[in-house]
Amino acid sequence: MFADPQTAEDAYYDAFDEHDLAKMMSVWSDSDEIVCLLPMLPAIKGRAAIERAFDPVLNPESAFDIQIKHLHWINNNDIAIHLVEEKISMADGPDQFVYATNIYQKNANNSWHMTMHQNSPVPPPPPPEQS
Amino acid sequence: MFADPQTAEDAYYDAFDEHDLAKMMSVWSDSDEIVCLLPMLPAIKGRAAIERAFDPVLNPESAFDIQIKHLHWINNNDIAIHLVEEKISMADGPDQFVYATNIYQKNANNSWHMTMHQNSPVPPPPPPEQS
Repeated sequence: MFADPQTAEDAYYDAFDEHDLAKMMSVWSDSDEIVCLLPMLPAIKGRAAIERAFDPVLNPESAFDIQIKHLHWINNNDIAIHLVEEKISMADGPDQFVYATNIYQKNANNSWHMTMHQNSPVPPPPPPEQS
Repeated sequence: MFADPQTAEDAYYDAFDEHDLAKMMSVWSDSDEIVCLLPMLPAIKGRAAIERAFDPVLNPESAFDIQIKHLHWINNNDIAIHLVEEKISMADGPDQFVYATNIYQKNANNSWHMTMHQNSPVPPPPPPEQS
């Protein structure tokens, strides 16, 4: 039960920290009309396919940290759209930045759940100035 | 005046075919709270910045064709979300495929306008089978 879209979003990102696939799947709507677009993967549709895609990502041995910054919100009574920047830090290598659009819908029980997630890469930093 | 989200979306893609920046900007909401995420560019916010970004894309000399395939729709009375696959064909080089999420809102005059657009790359085709 998520009383508002932000509570659902907090649980979504907590699921990464906690490697908790059940928590992740509790955030997604209980519907096969849900879609997830992860970087460089084909569109993933439906609960079973999304669960399979997140299983390796939430593996206890995958060590990364995601911090998010809100960029833009759109919402009305039963749809909410959050555009965020995700900063993904790994033990090795530089931080990665991606844009994510998280779309939530309120269900018949007044609980908010994710119905669509789309990531897209942020551009690399500009090259050093030419002289 | 766009009576429904699909009419606005048709005008958005027609603007590319017709190299028509005014038509493109008529599709976007008359608000500075609009956001456009084009491939490998920083998030673009507000009408003036979006117009500057589309100006070179709609240049009469830019020769490409976009065909779209609808993948998923979410909507209620005043927000509509269309996930489409864009197939971009250029004179030179292979076709490019990108996912696009087009988000529309109905304004006080019952006209539907784009409030957010996000592109993300579709994965490249799989490598030849290893044997």
